[in-house]
Amino acid sequence: VDLTRRLRAVLGGDAQVNDGPSARSLHARDASFHAPVEPDVVVFPAGVDDVCAVLELADALEVPVTPWGMGTSVEGNAIPVRGGISLSLQRMDAILDVDATSRTARVQAGVTRLALQRRVGPEGLCFPVDPGADASLGGMAATNAAGTTTLRYGKMREQVRGLEVVLAGGRRISTGTAAAKTSAGYDLTSLMVGSEGTLGVIVELVVGLHPIEEASASFRFSVPRLAAAGDAAAAIAGLGLPLLRLELMDAWEVRAVTAFTGLHLAPEPLVLGELAGPRPAVEEALAGLEAVVGELGGRKLAIARDRATQTELWRARHDAYFAELDAAPMRASLSTDVCVPLAALGATLAETRRAIDEAELTGGIVAHAGDGNVHVGLMVDPADADDLARARRLVDRLVEAALARGGTCTGEHGVGIGKRAHLALEHGDSVDLMRAIKRAFDPRGILNPGKVLPEEPT
Amino acid sequence: VDLTRRLRAVLGGDAQVNDGPSARSLHARDASFHAPVEPDVVVFPAGVDDVCAVLELADALEVPVTPWGMGTSVEGNAIPVRGGISLSLQRMDAILDVDATSRTARVQAGVTRLALQRRVGPEGLCFPVDPGADASLGGMAATNAAGTTTLRYGKMREQVRGLEVVLAGGRRISTGTAAAKTSAGYDLTSLMVGSEGTLGVIVELVVGLHPIEEASASFRFSVPRLAAAGDAAAAIAGLGLPLLRLELMDAWEVRAVTAFTGLHLAPEPLVLGELAGPRPAVEEALAGLEAVVGELGGRKLAIARDRATQTELWRARHDAYFAELDAAPMRASLSTDVCVPLAALGATLAETRRAIDEAELTGGIVAHAGDGNVHVGLMVDPADADDLARARRLVDRLVEAALARGGTCTGEHGVGIGKRAHLALEHGDSVDLMRAIKRAFDPRGILNPGKVLPEEPT
Repeated sequence: VDLTRRLRAVLGGDAQVNDGPSARSLHARDASFHAPVEPDVVVFPAGVDDVCAVLELADALEVPVTPWGMGTSVEGNAIPVRGGISLSLQRMDAILDVDATSRTARVQAGVTRLALQRRVGPEGLCFPVDPGADASLGGMAATNAAGTTTLRYGKMREQVRGLEVVLAGGRRISTGTAAAKTSAGYDLTSLMVGSEGTLGVIVELVVGLHPIEEASASFRFSVPRLAAAGDAAAAIAGLGLPLLRLELMDAWEVRAVTAFTGLHLAPEPLVLGELAGPRPAVEEALAGLEAVVGELGGRKLAIARDRATQTELWRARHDAYFAELDAAPMRASLSTDVCVPLAALGATLAETRRAIDEAELTGGIVAHAGDGNVHVGLMVDPADADDLARARRLVDRLVEAALARGGTCTGEHGVGIGKRAHLALEHGDSVDLMRAIKRAFDPRGILNPGKVLPEEPT
Repeated sequence: VDLTRRLRAVLGGDAQVNDGPSARSLHARDASFHAPVEPDVVVFPAGVDDVCAVLELADALEVPVTPWGMGTSVEGNAIPVRGGISLSLQRMDAILDVDATSRTARVQAGVTRLALQRRVGPEGLCFPVDPGADASLGGMAATNAAGTTTLRYGKMREQVRGLEVVLAGGRRISTGTAAAKTSAGYDLTSLMVGSEGTLGVIVELVVGLHPIEEASASFRFSVPRLAAAGDAAAAIAGLGLPLLRLELMDAWEVRAVTAFTGLHLAPEPLVLGELAGPRPAVEEALAGLEAVVGELGGRKLAIARDRATQTELWRARHDAYFAELDAAPMRASLSTDVCVPLAALGATLAETRRAIDEAELTGGIVAHAGDGNVHVGLMVDPADADDLARARRLVDRLVEAALARGGTCTGEHGVGIGKRAHLALEHGDSVDLMRAIKRAFDPRGILNPGKVLPEEPT
């Protein structure tokens, strides 16, 4: 209550500070399976000065601050595990500038990716990072989000040219510039991107935009065995086709989505792709596809050219999450991801399927195949401790296998709460450097404590 | 002499340690105009263990260590301004692994970009970063090098997936992984890339490779006024064409190259481009080009489809450096770069030309136009202090103009010696954070001292 009063005093308005049960409950959980923890109070800054004031006060009082975008993170990244302040950027949702010639947009952190797309689409431009949910751009930068089009355009780190960041203590800095490239000093932009709010609060971004492609077409085909499907996808990713997306679902997912949507699909692993570019390039790629797919052991190739048919073709992928929930009533989806070099994709997929089955867990695999990024959606009973424990052991096993194959413990979800121990496994030789950076940026440790960095040995 | 003896003792071989006048002189200067400074000794490690041993000894003795790749840096980045050890990675030139399916290569730091290209080309792959010189990949990562194809593929930071780094004191760490993407913790890979050897010595890299495009074609056209040429290039960059390169030369450069090569070119600003992709996409782009170029005020459009004609068309650009030297006998080229958002390219070019003329300096402008990256090549008399002083004032003026337009003091050359004060101008609010990172990585300040970070206020 004292915290609420002091926050209201510095912000000069009651409406920006809410410690009611509804606001606290809404900011206690993200889109993950991680246990909710309520903040003591939720703050809604109206602008950068408000963020500075909140961080100055929080530092003085040594109160934890966990930034909040849209709450769509999937590793507990936005859960305020030590209580304190949930700092919502939701009201900072202004698109400050769009420069169509430079192909850049300057936005406040609370702008969502679809809001930006609605603004820039009519100018023939797109913002390509699509993690599924309509996440905020600040949150997407903080977790270095990615998605289906990452094989073409890269992740958030490749889109972000510059940031305005408020540091612990309330000082504001700028990183990067609006230029397409820079070699000026240490890359604090890339350091902030993916730091999950532990080094500073991103309040504004300059992001790059891309011309919308002239034409697109989509395809899908089945492959009887999962390892062969992964190998086929890896081969297609290396052909130099104008791919925009290249996704893969295992037979469990295909069966779930068939039951949910009524689509007629062979109950086999499915590869889905989209080509985009100049119309003749797309047509040329389609013309060669049948032979390639046949050689790779694929069958039932379907091709869609117009937008409506493409949308229908992609329903199998887009409805996967809801199909998972439908396939396992009363269970929650525990989502995890690893990423491996493409040469290891087929083997990783097969091993992942085997591991799910051996653990007697329910769930399926969806992969951003073009990036070697494997997602597992496990349908667990949140009230069943044994179910959860087996799921966690499975995550350990998948991470160990990915690391053994030259991969990483998380391709795009971030570390959050769930992958802290795995970060130590992957980067044990440099975690001390990460800790040193954390201390330099946030000496009192108030920014999103309990995230990213592994537990300190006691 | 004592240093030489102790280095020989830890490396166990005389041939790896050379304090003779020839070796010291060869490692005293890079490709820039910055004054040479000789190291006390040059060391040639045969492997990572040697690098660790050298850094352990140097830390104990508090002797400066300046890493050396091929000496092609252009801001004094590799000059050992405080003496000590020049650490040459030249003998660590093994290509350790090429994975054609994952499209990655693991290389030692001394491998040059063309050596890697010779190895991967026969597999249909390319390593696309081309700064002109045949630089070492370790050096290119250390300065976050870029070049003509950056508008398509990005800079070094976008190619480097993981690094092996030896820290001050001799400890070895790995950053990143071989996977196409990762969200595991703070991005130490991006932090090391562009840190110019001040945070650690890059000894191995995992880099991404790209499929070689099916077809290419090149074009060039003249535009009477420089600002209009810049605006035309910016417009072309935004059309969504399959551009591989988009370059620009001002009339001074065109005249110099005409005199040098005998090419017949209008003495006007020149835009040069290369398209690459599936053949039909390239043809479609060419088909629309004449109308576009006409609308943008361009004339004398020339198009080249076969490789020999393309090479001839690009001679104007490739011979620019030698033409500069030829146009100003007995003078040295002082090269500097800034980078601005594309919308500011035309105005920046015109302002740059005016500034060169007002300073009564001799030189021309070459731009990586697709990135908004403007290079000035000034032909100065190194013995003429007034000439040099006017050149330095010009650099100050260009940087201030670039910053005012939302740009950066260096697009790809790095900070080195020459842009330290400009870094403070551009990132004054975060230089203290960069210093804190430097202290965390290199507490004794032995790694490439006198570079990147501005002079400490005394």
